[in-house]
Amino acid sequence: MPARLNVALVGAGLMGSFHAETLAHRLPHARLATIVDADEAKARELIERLELDDTRYESDPAAAFTDPAIQAVVIATPARFHAELIVGAAQGSKPVFCEKPLSHTLAEADRAIEAVAVAGTFLQIGFQRRFDRGFQRARRAVDDGTIGPVHLLRSITRDPAVPRPEGPLPWAIFLETMIHDFDVLRWLANSEPVEVSAMGASIGWGDDPASGLLDTAVCMVRFANGALGTADVSFNGAFGYDVRAEVFGPGGMAAVGDGRDDSAMLYTAAGVTRAHSAWFKQMFGEAYTRELEHFVECARTGSTPAVTGIDGRQSLRMALAAIESSRAGQSTPLPS
Amino acid sequence: MPARLNVALVGAGLMGSFHAETLAHRLPHARLATIVDADEAKARELIERLELDDTRYESDPAAAFTDPAIQAVVIATPARFHAELIVGAAQGSKPVFCEKPLSHTLAEADRAIEAVAVAGTFLQIGFQRRFDRGFQRARRAVDDGTIGPVHLLRSITRDPAVPRPEGPLPWAIFLETMIHDFDVLRWLANSEPVEVSAMGASIGWGDDPASGLLDTAVCMVRFANGALGTADVSFNGAFGYDVRAEVFGPGGMAAVGDGRDDSAMLYTAAGVTRAHSAWFKQMFGEAYTRELEHFVECARTGSTPAVTGIDGRQSLRMALAAIESSRAGQSTPLPS
Amino acid sequence: MPARLNVALVGAGLMGSFHAETLAHRLPHARLATIVDADEAKARELIERLELDDTRYESDPAAAFTDPAIQAVVIATPARFHAELIVGAAQGSKPVFCEKPLSHTLAEADRAIEAVAVAGTFLQIGFQRRFDRGFQRARRAVDDGTIGPVHLLRSITRDPAVPRPEGPLPWAIFLETMIHDFDVLRWLANSEPVEVSAMGASIGWGDDPASGLLDTAVCMVRFANGALGTADVSFNGAFGYDVRAEVFGPGGMAAVGDGRDDSAMLYTAAGVTRAHSAWFKQMFGEAYTRELEHFVECARTGSTPAVTGIDGRQSLRMALAAIESSRAGQSTPLPS
Amino acid sequence: MPARLNVALVGAGLMGSFHAETLAHRLPHARLATIVDADEAKARELIERLELDDTRYESDPAAAFTDPAIQAVVIATPARFHAELIVGAAQGSKPVFCEKPLSHTLAEADRAIEAVAVAGTFLQIGFQRRFDRGFQRARRAVDDGTIGPVHLLRSITRDPAVPRPEGPLPWAIFLETMIHDFDVLRWLANSEPVEVSAMGASIGWGDDPASGLLDTAVCMVRFANGALGTADVSFNGAFGYDVRAEVFGPGGMAAVGDGRDDSAMLYTAAGVTRAHSAWFKQMFGEAYTRELEHFVECARTGSTPAVTGIDGRQSLRMALAAIESSRAGQSTPLPS
Repeated sequence: MPARLNVALVGAGLMGSFHAETLAHRLPHARLATIVDADEAKARELIERLELDDTRYESDPAAAFTDPAIQAVVIATPARFHAELIVGAAQGSKPVFCEKPLSHTLAEADRAIEAVAVAGTFLQIGFQRRFDRGFQRARRAVDDGTIGPVHLLRSITRDPAVPRPEGPLPWAIFLETMIHDFDVLRWLANSEPVEVSAMGASIGWGDDPASGLLDTAVCMVRFANGALGTADVSFNGAFGYDVRAEVFGPGGMAAVGDGRDDSAMLYTAAGVTRAHSAWFKQMFGEAYTRELEHFVECARTGSTPAVTGIDGRQSLRMALAAIESSRAGQSTPLPS
Repeated sequence: MPARLNVALVGAGLMGSFHAETLAHRLPHARLATIVDADEAKARELIERLELDDTRYESDPAAAFTDPAIQAVVIATPARFHAELIVGAAQGSKPVFCEKPLSHTLAEADRAIEAVAVAGTFLQIGFQRRFDRGFQRARRAVDDGTIGPVHLLRSITRDPAVPRPEGPLPWAIFLETMIHDFDVLRWLANSEPVEVSAMGASIGWGDDPASGLLDTAVCMVRFANGALGTADVSFNGAFGYDVRAEVFGPGGMAAVGDGRDDSAMLYTAAGVTRAHSAWFKQMFGEAYTRELEHFVECARTGSTPAVTGIDGRQSLRMALAAIESSRAGQSTPLPS
Repeated sequence: MPARLNVALVGAGLMGSFHAETLAHRLPHARLATIVDADEAKARELIERLELDDTRYESDPAAAFTDPAIQAVVIATPARFHAELIVGAAQGSKPVFCEKPLSHTLAEADRAIEAVAVAGTFLQIGFQRRFDRGFQRARRAVDDGTIGPVHLLRSITRDPAVPRPEGPLPWAIFLETMIHDFDVLRWLANSEPVEVSAMGASIGWGDDPASGLLDTAVCMVRFANGALGTADVSFNGAFGYDVRAEVFGPGGMAAVGDGRDDSAMLYTAAGVTRAHSAWFKQMFGEAYTRELEHFVECARTGSTPAVTGIDGRQSLRMALAAIESSRAGQSTPLPS
Repeated sequence: MPARLNVALVGAGLMGSFHAETLAHRLPHARLATIVDADEAKARELIERLELDDTRYESDPAAAFTDPAIQAVVIATPARFHAELIVGAAQGSKPVFCEKPLSHTLAEADRAIEAVAVAGTFLQIGFQRRFDRGFQRARRAVDDGTIGPVHLLRSITRDPAVPRPEGPLPWAIFLETMIHDFDVLRWLANSEPVEVSAMGASIGWGDDPASGLLDTAVCMVRFANGALGTADVSFNGAFGYDVRAEVFGPGGMAAVGDGRDDSAMLYTAAGVTRAHSAWFKQMFGEAYTRELEHFVECARTGSTPAVTGIDGRQSLRMALAAIESSRAGQSTPLPS
């Protein structure tokens, strides 16, 4: 078992930079050996900012995938590259951590999962909410019988408002964002989805909803065990990052996600006020560390991670069904 | 303007008894003049329990509707009698307060609304959540522009678990319970619904969902102003009565309904615990008083109440659309 | 047992008016028969505002005390009149409810208590916090053994800031305000005080502290059972009325008093905000009703109230000891 | 500026082990070069557990203090060794971080502060609460004028109950524990104490209070700016670690320390429950990291830390005054 696992990171963007920091400075058992990014300047700037004296830069991921010194790969590129990179890393027999979503098509998802299986390695998907201590307490309340059979679920994501991006990805609200909620619902329901129904809107952006350029969406999901869940997503959050979940059954309910930023309360003539988490690093900083710690430990010990490619594929199916439902105005079955 | 309005109450059951107490003892401007109920023993027991020395009993509502001393009527019978009673009271020119739902069919709703219009009196529907101070603060945050254009809404109702009733009303989950949520969504959206989609289940009861004997339901609603809302209902609450709502827009969010029963927190080895409201009198006691106070003031002053028969009819339309949607597996348009 | 107890209210000021409303309109078993106040206009204005058609006005309390139709007396005058009025009411054999503090001197307190004992009637002191449901839950946690032997206590009162009154009562911060906290500490400790130590200041007002014109004070109390408590008071509250208490022991802690005004939370760019109770009617409206309800029931049934003249006297002793301590800079023993 | 500061840690006990982990694995700019402890087995076990391949063990602190490769010293021994070790480290010209309390006597405190001044290095005291984000928000509310002139303060510490230690340090409740609260009060008051009054008890332990073996204590402090503060401490916490503070002025109040362990709430028939922080690593893990990060940055850049030996000395003065006051039954002046 290596004292420090040599990890190659592919992608030095927003998430990649954050993972780089975790791999380099927060995980005693990891070493950020290589950073791969087509944009050399960006990668080198990251290496410098994090003071990574012995981290190499590579422009070509294949260099990392074939490097025998590299023991694991973390992928944090745009989703359209995920499948190809997973296949490459798997062919190099590397354990792979890949950011969500696994891919935008089932064909790609299947190709990636297949390659990993053939190579006999493993694939972990970056559903970090599962590693948040609050979310984990909610899941424990399901596992230990406190909730009883799950009847109702809820998961929400409201991203802080940013100007509408240039050339946004159609249906990103389902494929990139609500995919988190689909994973949470499925994980807390402890069951597979059988039916999805969704509505979308472009209220703030004012795009034609048929274009898939939505900033607001709601969804209902029926699970095989009978549970019903709802999800909603907005890209117009005014008060920070709002991520919550609920799981309800005949024994009670667990609710998670208060957005509390610290323990201070301010009492003034305006009322009693607390701060709210602004964005994902603030809210899930610890969870992101814990998911990579889990990945590193799985890679070092050869165990299977708690969130696999199958989880990535199932949440993708739910997202694709939600797109279809919101287009067709009817619920979409998810045959098993 | 009469110092005390003479009110006749029709129905001495669960809600009727509670309204009786409010009319008799909590409203300085009301006098509970008459109680009407086919079950004389029940009515007389209520009169005795509340020590109502000068309250009359009548078995026939017509006696109250035609009594010139009666200045207003409060109806708290099962919903199937509502329309007929409203028509009767209206023909006697009495202002009418009627418990929700207005009725179970649009035909009955229209007949009641028409009769009230013809008589030139008014009809208030018992959507008491609108009179809760927390819900009112949420609505003010819409009205004063804090929220901005409404993007997302949520309303939930989870009743405390009781044994499945004998011979339950089919689709009661939408017609009798989620009707509250429909009213809240519509009131907070400040817009009319254009599309409803629902899913129902009978998880705890184990009935055939096609029978309409559901104990669990979720719903999505699209409003004319673009807002999307969700609702969920359960009849299997373990921790009391759970009623909440949220309204979210680009300016922020108002969330209401913490179920807090008093201001005490208990810190023990089991964690930090507070009590949760057990049932509706506990949670909405003040709101029930305020809605009847509003009704009495409207009747005394001749003004129009804040919740009218139209509100009752619109929430009924949403409930009927939800039933249709949950049967058909597709969303139901609500043409204006 | 009379259906409605005929009550005479002495004092039509701030508290008196509020008690008048409760007696007249919120208690089915009470009738506000007489209002006594030297200021006839004020009393008649109150009678009119509350639409009290059959309430008499008297300028002389003796008229009420000797009126055989009066069955109980509620005193809400300035404290310097309390003892004399209690003696008068007792001599008329009336059960007496008297606002806190019982008096400003032990001699007066003893005279009042003695007169009540001689008359064989009873005296209830207006420590309404004991009737708040949250405070009662805290006390139950002591009574049922959850807390265990009490080790630490806290009680605080911060009044909303008002301009410094003209000619304020010296030491009012202890005699009129912290007297509430002394009662709460003693009630939650379930033990008698043996030592008091206090510090006072006039920070906002800028008076000479030796004058007793304090706007800020803190206090420590040791109880016979070993428990230690603190209290603090300010007259410069910016965010409303802040009243809280804690009781801590080896089994855990109960904390009470969140100042929550309703169940709404507002999420905006400024954070997450809730409203805070502005003043005493808002925070303790229900408790004030419940204490008078308790008084009326005791008077109707001949039972002894939960808060008696002895409680009034003990909190006065603590206040007097706190004054002495804050003058002398040393703790003041309270011999039993 | 060294990329990684070589730090020697003196003391491998409870706090020392935790600081070791932080220095070794959480601070990119620190290297835990040496661990000093008289107990070699304990130190080596720590080195092994943390997988510190290039950390040396020394039995004699002088070896570290005179080692030119060592660039800073962290002291986490029992307090009676602090002064001597600080003097030694200062004579080696090392910046020193020392756990609270600085010492148990003013003479030792002065000797340590003097030695550091003579050596031209610096001394940081381990008052980690100042580095907690909630506490910092409270202090910002003082600094930015939100609170206004400080009128009232509160700080509390309740340690989780453990069996009474064998041969406990007399007056430890003030010298070792309430010293945290004294620092917090002084820091939030932004003023120096002028008068202290305290009461102590041994309720759970049952020791003679005169022995100083107290498990419960309360204290009042008057500050030069007029503010009054209270503190309380217990060693009998049933629900975890309870650390809170409040600062109140005419502009409002900041309250900090909710003990919230994660964002999950569990709703069951028993009420609504959340978990409470069990102990100091859980509650202040991030603050401990941030105080050492601050120390390392000060040592790397030559700047003065935010918490110095003077802060350690002032809180010690308050503790000593509290001991004297609790013995004498009168308040103790703290002449400037």
